[in-house]
Amino acid sequence: MRKSVSLAPGLAIGGDYFVVMAGPCAVETRELLFTVADTVAAAGAAVLRGGVFKPRTSPKSFQGLGESGLLLLAEASRRTGLPVVTEVMDPRDVNLVAEHAAILQVGSRNMQNFPLLREVGRQRRPVLLKRGAAATIDELLHAAEYILQEGNDNVVLCERGVRGFDPATRYVLDLAAVPVIKQRSPLPVIVDPSHGTGEASLVPAMARAAAAAGADGLLIEVHAQPEIALSDGKQALRPAEFAQLAAELRRLVPLVGKRWARGAAVGADLPTIDTFDDQAIAP
Amino acid sequence: MRKSVSLAPGLAIGGDYFVVMAGPCAVETRELLFTVADTVAAAGAAVLRGGVFKPRTSPKSFQGLGESGLLLLAEASRRTGLPVVTEVMDPRDVNLVAEHAAILQVGSRNMQNFPLLREVGRQRRPVLLKRGAAATIDELLHAAEYILQEGNDNVVLCERGVRGFDPATRYVLDLAAVPVIKQRSPLPVIVDPSHGTGEASLVPAMARAAAAAGADGLLIEVHAQPEIALSDGKQALRPAEFAQLAAELRRLVPLVGKRWARGAAVGADLPTIDTFDDQAIAP
Amino acid sequence: MRKSVSLAPGLAIGGDYFVVMAGPCAVETRELLFTVADTVAAAGAAVLRGGVFKPRTSPKSFQGLGESGLLLLAEASRRTGLPVVTEVMDPRDVNLVAEHAAILQVGSRNMQNFPLLREVGRQRRPVLLKRGAAATIDELLHAAEYILQEGNDNVVLCERGVRGFDPATRYVLDLAAVPVIKQRSPLPVIVDPSHGTGEASLVPAMARAAAAAGADGLLIEVHAQPEIALSDGKQALRPAEFAQLAAELRRLVPLVGKRWARGAAVGADLPTIDTFDDQAIAP
Amino acid sequence: MRKSVSLAPGLAIGGDYFVVMAGPCAVETRELLFTVADTVAAAGAAVLRGGVFKPRTSPKSFQGLGESGLLLLAEASRRTGLPVVTEVMDPRDVNLVAEHAAILQVGSRNMQNFPLLREVGRQRRPVLLKRGAAATIDELLHAAEYILQEGNDNVVLCERGVRGFDPATRYVLDLAAVPVIKQRSPLPVIVDPSHGTGEASLVPAMARAAAAAGADGLLIEVHAQPEIALSDGKQALRPAEFAQLAAELRRLVPLVGKRWARGAAVGADLPTIDTFDDQAIAP
Repeated sequence: MRKSVSLAPGLAIGGDYFVVMAGPCAVETRELLFTVADTVAAAGAAVLRGGVFKPRTSPKSFQGLGESGLLLLAEASRRTGLPVVTEVMDPRDVNLVAEHAAILQVGSRNMQNFPLLREVGRQRRPVLLKRGAAATIDELLHAAEYILQEGNDNVVLCERGVRGFDPATRYVLDLAAVPVIKQRSPLPVIVDPSHGTGEASLVPAMARAAAAAGADGLLIEVHAQPEIALSDGKQALRPAEFAQLAAELRRLVPLVGKRWARGAAVGADLPTIDTFDDQAIAP
Repeated sequence: MRKSVSLAPGLAIGGDYFVVMAGPCAVETRELLFTVADTVAAAGAAVLRGGVFKPRTSPKSFQGLGESGLLLLAEASRRTGLPVVTEVMDPRDVNLVAEHAAILQVGSRNMQNFPLLREVGRQRRPVLLKRGAAATIDELLHAAEYILQEGNDNVVLCERGVRGFDPATRYVLDLAAVPVIKQRSPLPVIVDPSHGTGEASLVPAMARAAAAAGADGLLIEVHAQPEIALSDGKQALRPAEFAQLAAELRRLVPLVGKRWARGAAVGADLPTIDTFDDQAIAP
Repeated sequence: MRKSVSLAPGLAIGGDYFVVMAGPCAVETRELLFTVADTVAAAGAAVLRGGVFKPRTSPKSFQGLGESGLLLLAEASRRTGLPVVTEVMDPRDVNLVAEHAAILQVGSRNMQNFPLLREVGRQRRPVLLKRGAAATIDELLHAAEYILQEGNDNVVLCERGVRGFDPATRYVLDLAAVPVIKQRSPLPVIVDPSHGTGEASLVPAMARAAAAAGADGLLIEVHAQPEIALSDGKQALRPAEFAQLAAELRRLVPLVGKRWARGAAVGADLPTIDTFDDQAIAP
Repeated sequence: MRKSVSLAPGLAIGGDYFVVMAGPCAVETRELLFTVADTVAAAGAAVLRGGVFKPRTSPKSFQGLGESGLLLLAEASRRTGLPVVTEVMDPRDVNLVAEHAAILQVGSRNMQNFPLLREVGRQRRPVLLKRGAAATIDELLHAAEYILQEGNDNVVLCERGVRGFDPATRYVLDLAAVPVIKQRSPLPVIVDPSHGTGEASLVPAMARAAAAAGADGLLIEVHAQPEIALSDGKQALRPAEFAQLAAELRRLVPLVGKRWARGAAVGADLPTIDTFDDQAIAP
């Protein structure tokens, strides 16, 4: 039987709902964060994403705001009503991150960071576990077992691209992982087309494809001004592009038996999906 | 400007139409071929596929019926009204195949078989060129140039999976190739989810994903009795599974701005897409 | 200018010396460890390897002896005179491991575990940094910068195989990484043919190849009874096989301008390389 | 029992001998060809390589001299006493190439060009079959069976690199293929470090590594003026670099139980390996 993971009061992933998590790659400034948070909330995202501990290839790159970024995320969460997902890299930071974020993300570079997996397994928070770029699906499922074994069964898996030989894309988004995971595991699975392609112009097509393949949701990077982003700007959608994509996805997901989950579902007085006005969010 | 390739009188690929090519991996017997041909025609496929010159890894495997298979394909084409696509491997066979088939397929193993590319480039028939399992998208586009340079600009590209490290699937279906090709080339592009996954149970999800990614069509293996197929039975859909998938796809493609192309479009008295009865083809 | 990393008093890597590190994948029992330690010391290894914190794909697999294993390693080090290299996975364990081991290994799964890299960077101990299975050489060099930046410039790199598509070997040992790293970095580089192939019968050929390619040393798994090993027995050499390989390597390395480094170099009264008797170590 | 393939009168591959095949990627002019041919003969190569039918990614690249190039190769062969290996791409050219060349090469792009494999299988000439960039070792062995099945059992296999994700090298040279092939097949196997790395500065290290891994020989590109080469100049050694490498290899191969095979072995009055003067060929 498929598992449903409760992400926040009134919001679950893994059943009928299609959950879009969106936001900037990295939290940079309050203004940029709030602009994006308001936009993705208005466009119908259910979860706000944003990185404060950034796993960067080079130590000379921007490493994230750390704890002060967490506080900004918490503020943006209160402002928009959206629960927040953010990455934790260090087992010593897990308690801190769990205080401020609704969902703990373990990134692809840490998929087999077993001390970290055990630490998030000891929390109550749902965990978003991303597939490593060289990990087989079975290795991803074994990694999830490290979390489950500690008592936390609120695990959401995420396909985000594997290494390939073609420089046309940064990674090869392995969408077949979605139906394979559904055959092998009861855990929900979402897709990250932003990292999976590394190129904003490819994100809408791959986001639609992921939805059509049966994914339980998406993780999408959005930035108010991608050209000045401190991290991965090349793959971030602009707010209007995200709104356009969200509108397309809202029409698509019912065809694969899903319902669009809004952060609205969390509160009580926001418009329901049926009355949601596509026109209002079109660019 | 995007190119539209005329596949048969009244049937083009690369514009608004979404073209599904379906049929057995290999032509085996008249009875099996006709059963599948009738099924895929009834379910709304636009083109009948079937292999008669089979590129098999081992010389001990079934190598295809050769010319007698071509005659069966031609008969199935007349019977159903569907144009036929079949693979040609040997430059010395190109004239023969072009006599009997509407579309010449160059398989992934021959993507850089340059004498063969030149030979199909000298024909008038449209050519379906499949991406090699280790070929970059740019290498695929260069291979197409070998055909174009000989004067045949009716080339349709096909993504069919690249080599990956995870034994969960036979290949990694690189769906991002669809939007990348559309950015780099005017040629239409279809997707083969059967070879791209190697596993029938994954084909529907990947077929839907390909359509949502913007592909101009699909190449799908269907076999009346996959368990006795002489080639690649593991990845063939049964007729009822194909009909079910076709019904799903017919609802999906309008969402990405496409219209379903039927072989029916070729003749005159078959039901049009608007009156096509989904219920009639449900399993 | 190439950097030389001092591994222990009298033992450096990165200059003329060719340093072989050998021992069991995991420390299991005192008896098994000492048998292997004595063997590899006698055969001319310069460093003893052994895992006590094991990064295992599944949480149900043997996870290593932890601190009690460290004490056994320290005992084996005193017994043989060989310095010990062992993996550390958790930033919280770095101090503990640094107390007992001469060299800190960061495994391939943790190549981009940046908190761990920073923590070993704050130690004085040399660090053996293994390339991730999906990491480019430049990503490996950037990971090393995380260690260097903290003030520890005693970093030795290790090629141990990247993900490939052929199940004939567990990974693809990318030996060209050796000359590429030498072109791009002053850091020494060794090769792990045990993990790089996953198959003991392939280790001698790949060990010789690594030496011929110019590697500064090798990391080789040896087990007294591979068939009962709790971890990776399939890739472990038996003691006699290792002794045979060491004898071959000792003849080979002078051809590429290297000298065989013995643990003997550490002490004073062991035979020097010139008087070392090959016959004595032949199986 | 391991098979030995006779390449020319007095010259076999697959037993004790280590056979180096060297020459330009493409035959360009008589002068360039003869300069290289004389150099590689003097440095101790046993076979002259040179391409006249070139499989180029783009149709706009130099495609080779064709038949006139074959005549130049035949002339260079008479001049130096070295047998010639050259690629054939088109089954219709096999007879022509077999008239002028001692060894027929099937390139990596054509490893599964089954009509071509059958055609070279009907010749008496030895066939050099290169592994495809996405081919498993078992697929290579199956491809060889297409040749063997037609009656030609003089097949030499060649590892030349598989597709990988790291742009540091053009391909990943999979040297473990050498011992794996020796475990699975009696056929001899050589290595092409020029295509396998795509970079001349890496060729010597990988050539030595291939020899140390137990390869039966090498295929190496040499060009008198790489900077003006019409094809793959980036990976060609200069004559002096090749002579230096040959001298190194001549000292290395005895350590792995091999003897250096010279073209000299073909004639009678050239110096034998024992009296061959390394100094004479040093740059």
